[in-house]
Amino acid sequence: MSFQKIDDLGRKLEALEHALAILGADEATHMAVGGGEKRAEAMASLAGMYHRQATAPEIADWIADAEAQKLGEEQQAAVREFRRHYTNLTCLPVDFVERQTNARMRCEQLWRDLRAKNDWAGFLPALDGVIALAREEATMRADVLGLEPYDAMIEQHDPGARTASIGPVFSELKGFLKEFVPEALGVQEERAARRPLKALSGIYPVEKQRELGLAMMAATGFDLSHGSLSVSHHPFCGGVPSDVRITTRYRTSEFLSALMGVLHETGHALYEQNLPKEWSHWPLGKARGMAMHESQSLFVEKQLGRNPAFWRWALPVIAKHLGEAWTLEDILPHVHRVERGLIRVDADEVTYPLHVILRYELEEDIIAGKLETIDLPAAWDAKMREYLGLSTIDTPGDGPMQDVHWAAGAFGYFPSYTLGAMMAAQQWAALTREHPAADSDLAEGNFDKINDWRRDKIWSQGSRWSTPELLERATGEKLEASHFINHLRGRYGEV
Amino acid sequence: MSFQKIDDLGRKLEALEHALAILGADEATHMAVGGGEKRAEAMASLAGMYHRQATAPEIADWIADAEAQKLGEEQQAAVREFRRHYTNLTCLPVDFVERQTNARMRCEQLWRDLRAKNDWAGFLPALDGVIALAREEATMRADVLGLEPYDAMIEQHDPGARTASIGPVFSELKGFLKEFVPEALGVQEERAARRPLKALSGIYPVEKQRELGLAMMAATGFDLSHGSLSVSHHPFCGGVPSDVRITTRYRTSEFLSALMGVLHETGHALYEQNLPKEWSHWPLGKARGMAMHESQSLFVEKQLGRNPAFWRWALPVIAKHLGEAWTLEDILPHVHRVERGLIRVDADEVTYPLHVILRYELEEDIIAGKLETIDLPAAWDAKMREYLGLSTIDTPGDGPMQDVHWAAGAFGYFPSYTLGAMMAAQQWAALTREHPAADSDLAEGNFDKINDWRRDKIWSQGSRWSTPELLERATGEKLEASHFINHLRGRYGEV
Repeated sequence: MSFQKIDDLGRKLEALEHALAILGADEATHMAVGGGEKRAEAMASLAGMYHRQATAPEIADWIADAEAQKLGEEQQAAVREFRRHYTNLTCLPVDFVERQTNARMRCEQLWRDLRAKNDWAGFLPALDGVIALAREEATMRADVLGLEPYDAMIEQHDPGARTASIGPVFSELKGFLKEFVPEALGVQEERAARRPLKALSGIYPVEKQRELGLAMMAATGFDLSHGSLSVSHHPFCGGVPSDVRITTRYRTSEFLSALMGVLHETGHALYEQNLPKEWSHWPLGKARGMAMHESQSLFVEKQLGRNPAFWRWALPVIAKHLGEAWTLEDILPHVHRVERGLIRVDADEVTYPLHVILRYELEEDIIAGKLETIDLPAAWDAKMREYLGLSTIDTPGDGPMQDVHWAAGAFGYFPSYTLGAMMAAQQWAALTREHPAADSDLAEGNFDKINDWRRDKIWSQGSRWSTPELLERATGEKLEASHFINHLRGRYGEV
Repeated sequence: MSFQKIDDLGRKLEALEHALAILGADEATHMAVGGGEKRAEAMASLAGMYHRQATAPEIADWIADAEAQKLGEEQQAAVREFRRHYTNLTCLPVDFVERQTNARMRCEQLWRDLRAKNDWAGFLPALDGVIALAREEATMRADVLGLEPYDAMIEQHDPGARTASIGPVFSELKGFLKEFVPEALGVQEERAARRPLKALSGIYPVEKQRELGLAMMAATGFDLSHGSLSVSHHPFCGGVPSDVRITTRYRTSEFLSALMGVLHETGHALYEQNLPKEWSHWPLGKARGMAMHESQSLFVEKQLGRNPAFWRWALPVIAKHLGEAWTLEDILPHVHRVERGLIRVDADEVTYPLHVILRYELEEDIIAGKLETIDLPAAWDAKMREYLGLSTIDTPGDGPMQDVHWAAGAFGYFPSYTLGAMMAAQQWAALTREHPAADSDLAEGNFDKINDWRRDKIWSQGSRWSTPELLERATGEKLEASHFINHLRGRYGEV
């Protein structure tokens, strides 16, 4: 039985994924500093075993045979996702993947060194090489998938997402934000004039912040018997669904950044912990792509965690753990702080999409061959001045050298962040239509109905539908900028 | 080139070993409680991959070809150990291994449940099945290796060790101990009469005990950039040589048990951290068996860590971390406590060997078919009464059901503990002959020359020599009971 062969293979691959996921999380949290070299060797070797086993030629026959078998609907879906996975893994020639891996690794190493030095000239040749290979990759994937080249790259991160539908939505959002950012900043200034900002400072021991984080995780639905909270340099959500590892980092001088980080990663973790367990060894059982994953983290961080109703419940919890009684009027200006800045990862929810749309537009032109690597600093600067009134022409480290994504060859990834933000707002809008008491639930720290909705609509679906289909089934609509726009207006606009 | 094939295979196996070692250590320290089932599945699958790759039939040809190649001495040694490893892995038929694995797992599960209930009758059939299979295993291994059956089992744990040499040494030690235990207890009583025991109690926060443990680890040579200290239910030394994971457990009411545990595991860790790095992907680069490993842990715990000179240095370190100033006269009676007890793992260094010799003698008869499973409780009780004056006839949970080893089918393992204790004493004797200032080094907390000797004689040798050869090369003598006997006399006997 060919389906059985696929099923058995899935279990072997799951074991290797398990090892890679735990070794990866361990590396960032518990590994001894000198253990890195051997860890890298071991993980490269395991990744090689994974690739060899997942791309074996006989699998093509198993899939074809399984497609011809009489299978139940779930198994058909499993085979469909297995094929998608297999096609994406095998459509590039091995020698191309090797060349690309080398070019990416070299470019990432250079990036680590040269970004802080703003050395664009030194970085350019390596990035140019990675971009040439990305264009080649996009063309090859496009041929196999029957898509446009940039769409074929987006497909790797968000199955079913296409520029034809993303483009108009991003355009609408951009048009709105170019006018709205000044408005939100004006509102903020006005409020600060009426009530001066209480500085976010104090002494908050790490152990107490950790206890607060664990309490918030548990309250928002994180299953502490299937996951844990550690410390790492960069916060992440890793591990496996049966043991989700999330991390944060602490500053003893303030508690908000660690706490918001914990909420963000908890959002990712809830998705992983609630995926269908019986499918865990199939691609079908995985989360549906980056944008949907980001929608789950942003749902908890932004839709819930920056909602004033949430803070009615949260402030006493914080007071209990940290011994400091903030008022809603004093904390919300920090939770809702808006600022024009150069750095994407530091951006707030109002300005963040402009950072992403800038990259999306540049990426699209890069892959299409309309923009050359050498012209990136000027193109970046022009958009940055237009969207946020800031210039990066003298600081390429804050411009096209800002993120590791392009150095690592990850084109088509950036849109996920803002697609996620929009999808989170659309999910919250749909949820509150069905469950109008969601805000008062939040104010009571009651996440049950909110999580029930999300489990039913998103988490339990695994990779059953494409990203756009999953969103439409969950919310009753295709992707719409209006929900996110209304969300921002309501939280940051003039009343 | 066949040697190259072996070398490449070694790197793949090392990656799987790395994953299994880190996953195993993680399971006992950082894994979420609900993660166990998936972890077990993943590890079983990875162990299967390891076994398939390590036992592939073509490897036999590679080894034979490599043996015919013109190789350097190191590479010849590598091939020799590769063959030993391959032979031990492949000499049992696959269906036998599967039957045995099932029987062992079932027996271990029963053991966990029935030991506390002293339910020998319920346990007997399962253990009898495991013993029948162990006899079969021993016969098959004996045929392939050209050894006696029990020797073929010992060979799995301590290559080169044979009953013909262990037997007389154990006999001599047993004869000594049967008379010496009463003597040591008498000395202890006399001393207590002169100076009453100061109770080992207080309040020692875990964090402070942990800092003390780390300070002791670093001082005794543990490389903290290639390893770490965590907490687990049972102390262990795991991980990989580039990242050695040791653990302990704490009681806040006293510090000695955690600290001695840390010293013991540090002894294991030093061996692992100092193995030849360039051989790490060959069996040749592994530590030489259980007895030699135990000799390294006992060297640190007993030869160093219970040496009065060590405590001259250690007491101020303890006072600094725990804020309590013990005197040498008050602490040594605890460090040198002797007690007749039923439980091996709780035994002190004087009585421990009697627990081991008892098991060794019973095992030898079991494998030879001279002792049947049903007669074990009576045989155990008879020896226990003879050696330690204690009876277990009414409490089989403290008798033949005490340890997991037999339930798990691990026959030939027990001798390692006492071989290790004797080898540690023999190493200390050889070291102090060459370096008479070792005691004063200890009193100053200077472990450099002591560790240099051990690195040169033991750690750097990997699996180059059989256990007896390695000992003889290091100490200039074959295994001798006299060094351990002199050690006990000096520390516990009448002056």
